[in-house]
Amino acid sequence: MYDAALSLVVEVGYPKTTIEGIAARAGVGKQTIYRWWSSKADVLMEAFLDLAEQATRQGGHEPYAFPDTGDLAADLKVVLRATVDELKDPRFEVPSRALAAQGVVDEQFGRQLVAKLMQPSLDLYMERLRAAQDAGQVRPEVDPRIALEFFISPLAQRWLQHTGPISYEYTDTLVDYALHGLAPR
Amino acid sequence: MYDAALSLVVEVGYPKTTIEGIAARAGVGKQTIYRWWSSKADVLMEAFLDLAEQATRQGGHEPYAFPDTGDLAADLKVVLRATVDELKDPRFEVPSRALAAQGVVDEQFGRQLVAKLMQPSLDLYMERLRAAQDAGQVRPEVDPRIALEFFISPLAQRWLQHTGPISYEYTDTLVDYALHGLAPR
Repeated sequence: MYDAALSLVVEVGYPKTTIEGIAARAGVGKQTIYRWWSSKADVLMEAFLDLAEQATRQGGHEPYAFPDTGDLAADLKVVLRATVDELKDPRFEVPSRALAAQGVVDEQFGRQLVAKLMQPSLDLYMERLRAAQDAGQVRPEVDPRIALEFFISPLAQRWLQHTGPISYEYTDTLVDYALHGLAPR
Repeated sequence: MYDAALSLVVEVGYPKTTIEGIAARAGVGKQTIYRWWSSKADVLMEAFLDLAEQATRQGGHEPYAFPDTGDLAADLKVVLRATVDELKDPRFEVPSRALAAQGVVDEQFGRQLVAKLMQPSLDLYMERLRAAQDAGQVRPEVDPRIALEFFISPLAQRWLQHTGPISYEYTDTLVDYALHGLAPR
């Protein structure tokens, strides 16, 4: 079912993907789909979430875990390198672009994507940054919700808008610049 | 012509917008369009560029100018506050979302968008950051092309993916965090 949903959205785009089309491709009746999901957005997001979890596990990482070795820079670099791998994984790339593009023009869908697909990892960043604040490695007045954007947003923009290449060296640099600041110390 | 192109892409989306449709809405023959533009992507990007320049001028700013008062933080805050205004301008928002969404799924189109619509302002950021390096306000080893992403990418992601609200206070905070770093000094 998930494969049918993802392959359909990749082929025809989000607007033309229908519950009927997913059912036909999966070889089931549409009632079967409606028994479990209330809309095509729901099916697609769950299918994508399942794919992302598989990819994370195959990459040797635990989904919904963020390392805490006590070295914040090192931990952020490990997580961002894994994100680079995911963003470059072709199984992941095409469906996630189809969903992200729909989120750009459809605010309600975009907010659902954030809540279901992104918020769990944002929460982990916030938790790790708060631990770093407790350890005196991040200034106490910094808002972790904004700080985490220095790690995820530049990478997201390069990926979404094709504004630049994505590499481990690049994400390592983001971590160093963000922690130490652009101004001389 | 520009109005026709933008209103059409807003109504039917990028994939269904055609040169014929733009010509019909503008009340001209399609040969007229082909005399000046080679594709619908060209027409739409120029229409959008024209709109963005108008919006900048109406906001009391010079397009393609970046203040240099000697106070890097203040200059960045002024520019980012103007960007917040533009992103919230409804005339600008809907067509720019339609173009951005197409850029997410179509790499060639995305790269054209960056080259035509974004690169001029990226160049201005780089120039201002290099001047700040010369003035000793930004560390000499920092790559300005990466550094500028701390100012534009978090804002771009909140706007594109609906990950959070956009305000002057938010962009002011980005400037302070990026210049001084998250770690204690």
